[in-house]
Amino acid sequence: MFENKERTTVDQLGEFGLINHLISAIKLETDQTLVPAGDDAAIIATKGKDLVVSTDMLVENVHFDVMYTPLKHLGYKAAVVNFSDICAMNAIPSQLTMSMAFSSKYTLEAIEELYSGILLACKKYKVDLVGGDTCTIPQGLVLTGTAMGFGDNNNTTKRAGAKPGDLLCVTGDLGGAYMGLQLLEREKRVFLDNNEMKPDLGSHDYIVGRQLKPEARIDVIEILKNLEIQPTSMIDISDGLSSEVFHLSEASKVDFSIYEDKLPIDQDTFDMAVEFGIDPTTAALNGGEDYELLFTVDQQEYEKLKAHLDITIIGYAKEAGMKNELISKQGNTYELKAQGWKHKQ
Amino acid sequence: MFENKERTTVDQLGEFGLINHLISAIKLETDQTLVPAGDDAAIIATKGKDLVVSTDMLVENVHFDVMYTPLKHLGYKAAVVNFSDICAMNAIPSQLTMSMAFSSKYTLEAIEELYSGILLACKKYKVDLVGGDTCTIPQGLVLTGTAMGFGDNNNTTKRAGAKPGDLLCVTGDLGGAYMGLQLLEREKRVFLDNNEMKPDLGSHDYIVGRQLKPEARIDVIEILKNLEIQPTSMIDISDGLSSEVFHLSEASKVDFSIYEDKLPIDQDTFDMAVEFGIDPTTAALNGGEDYELLFTVDQQEYEKLKAHLDITIIGYAKEAGMKNELISKQGNTYELKAQGWKHKQ
Repeated sequence: MFENKERTTVDQLGEFGLINHLISAIKLETDQTLVPAGDDAAIIATKGKDLVVSTDMLVENVHFDVMYTPLKHLGYKAAVVNFSDICAMNAIPSQLTMSMAFSSKYTLEAIEELYSGILLACKKYKVDLVGGDTCTIPQGLVLTGTAMGFGDNNNTTKRAGAKPGDLLCVTGDLGGAYMGLQLLEREKRVFLDNNEMKPDLGSHDYIVGRQLKPEARIDVIEILKNLEIQPTSMIDISDGLSSEVFHLSEASKVDFSIYEDKLPIDQDTFDMAVEFGIDPTTAALNGGEDYELLFTVDQQEYEKLKAHLDITIIGYAKEAGMKNELISKQGNTYELKAQGWKHKQ
Repeated sequence: MFENKERTTVDQLGEFGLINHLISAIKLETDQTLVPAGDDAAIIATKGKDLVVSTDMLVENVHFDVMYTPLKHLGYKAAVVNFSDICAMNAIPSQLTMSMAFSSKYTLEAIEELYSGILLACKKYKVDLVGGDTCTIPQGLVLTGTAMGFGDNNNTTKRAGAKPGDLLCVTGDLGGAYMGLQLLEREKRVFLDNNEMKPDLGSHDYIVGRQLKPEARIDVIEILKNLEIQPTSMIDISDGLSSEVFHLSEASKVDFSIYEDKLPIDQDTFDMAVEFGIDPTTAALNGGEDYELLFTVDQQEYEKLKAHLDITIIGYAKEAGMKNELISKQGNTYELKAQGWKHKQ
């Protein structure tokens, strides 16, 4: 993608030089982008649809650790977490701006690696990178992405809208990104204790991938469209299922009951949780960064949805004031907490 | 705007708490914003116009010094510099996202002050703040704004488009923000040398205001529309006139001649430049951050423009390959450089 192969400081290029260098690697993915990055602003043709826009920031040592995060993966993730927010509105991401503030420890080659991950995500999701800004800061790396997308008028989906009786559905499986993070953190500690020990990520590609290279469920938005299902509310799972259930609950003014035995947990996630002495249900409820979609549908959609292996009905909405609850495998009812869940009297 | 009056750490609120607290102060300015900040993404109704989007980052000690920058002014500026980019496309800003990464030295009250400046700019420009993210970083303050706006289809203006013979126009006056910065830096040094010396900004409100509280020339976009003038190319002056002339020159594949005696320089800017031993022309050519608009129009628009006191015709476009030049008050020709200008043989 970039031709230079030697270690280059960003100072040698200057800000304009760096921006032009990075922009030269962009290939447009949509014919909607009339003016791409490089002018004062990008211009995007609209077709009477609703514009959906979201912004998300990733900060070194808060959201990621460069010790075990390849920069290309980080760039990919920084783009995808923004796409996921657009999907969570039942819309399709189409444009992205990405600003990068980095310390002098990041060489041009490092920034290129990061950028190639952003562009890879853009290519995969058919999104145009239409702008960005770069600057040096004293310490760390801050990535701020703003994604835009379009949804059919009146067809976009908010957190508010779930009504009592609606089915609560989740895509994919839960807790994997969290267990991947636990594994990466453990191997980092081992490595810091003894530099000669190589990280042993074993055959845990799945959960490590869930942490380092998440995907946005744009495919599910297409599935829902094809099935002619209009979700009544939707959110993406960035902070953990429990936390997101509370967001839907507050916005929609309903409460939810969810069934422990319905929670979709991958075998690798389950095994690693057991190895770490963590209840797999806790990992599924509170582990963040899965970027799956959590949504509600009217009960009448049950027949359309039940055949879809990648969408699981995990519970239902009920009148507000009944508390958000988890019904355990043993049939006991526990009050759900935004972080964690405690035994009910 | 915010009720609490005591010193509060941001940690006490947490990220969700902080975001909810800040969002509660937003009042919508447009009926285009269907879903405001607070969901996964905002939703903006489109009316078949072109969407224009731009992003700009302000970093502590690179773009601003909190020692002499009131945080409310900083928030205002962080919003306005993004609006200015939208205006530079001949479009009207209508939505903004603003992300803030800050160290623990910033209290909740400081963040509120910053935010109140952002909201003040939004109110003045009738722009809706539709999203943002917050996070702590080890050092400094990073503000990343992304502005969106709409322009009439086929009526938006790029850097490319100027043709030989077009008139080169600039709004307002130049060099003021730069001289304001020089004054603030001098008073900072005096203060650092002797803490008992109070900053003497004298009666230089104008140039200090140009630096600390710039405005985007949305009024000029309205004027051009009312005059039925379609600029052939346009850019905003953030890095200095010379630098922007080169951007228009490169994108439009023309060169420019500009007349030194036409450069609009305020008396306060002129006097302060003399006081600092800086050639006022150099301040006008190379001083950044004026956020005025630089644009070209067809010669036939001359009659419509000449009466407008706030728009100055400073030169003209010519065939590429003739070099960008400054014609001095004495009638000598100097080759213009992106930064500075040197005597031609």
